[in-house]
Amino acid sequence: MRFQAKVQVWLRPGIADPEGHTVSEAINALGYSGVSTVRMGKIISMIVEAESKESATAKVSEIASTLLSNPVLEDALIQIEEA
Amino acid sequence: MRFQAKVQVWLRPGIADPEGHTVSEAINALGYSGVSTVRMGKIISMIVEAESKESATAKVSEIASTLLSNPVLEDALIQIEEA
Repeated sequence: MRFQAKVQVWLRPGIADPEGHTVSEAINALGYSGVSTVRMGKIISMIVEAESKESATAKVSEIASTLLSNPVLEDALIQIEEA
Repeated sequence: MRFQAKVQVWLRPGIADPEGHTVSEAINALGYSGVSTVRMGKIISMIVEAESKESATAKVSEIASTLLSNPVLEDALIQIEEA
């Protein structure tokens, strides 16, 4: 079976996000009001071949923690659906 | 009203994604099989104060196309929900 997986990688809450801070300042400098708490993350999509949704999820979560994120600083959020 | 907005920024289909290609090769080099079509994107979350969901969506889509993405190369996908 083929699955479409998306992995969101976010800095953990409490970890400083200078990129998000800069974007937040730029948004205000451009004159938009009422925008706050800007956080930047990465998102990775991939197609995964696996026997079941469970085995696809296991594979993707292993890839997410070994390759796509730094578990000390970042959280990985996995979404999987049939492709 | 407060809204939680997430903007996904993806390279348009057909635009080369060297970062995704590199991750794809690394995944295979680590011994995972059956993973393909790796694409890398950015995701930005923010809190938006607005009168209605429509005005929040309008504001975020303007920010997304002027500041968060390059509309020539990238597509921005907006998700908004009440915070």
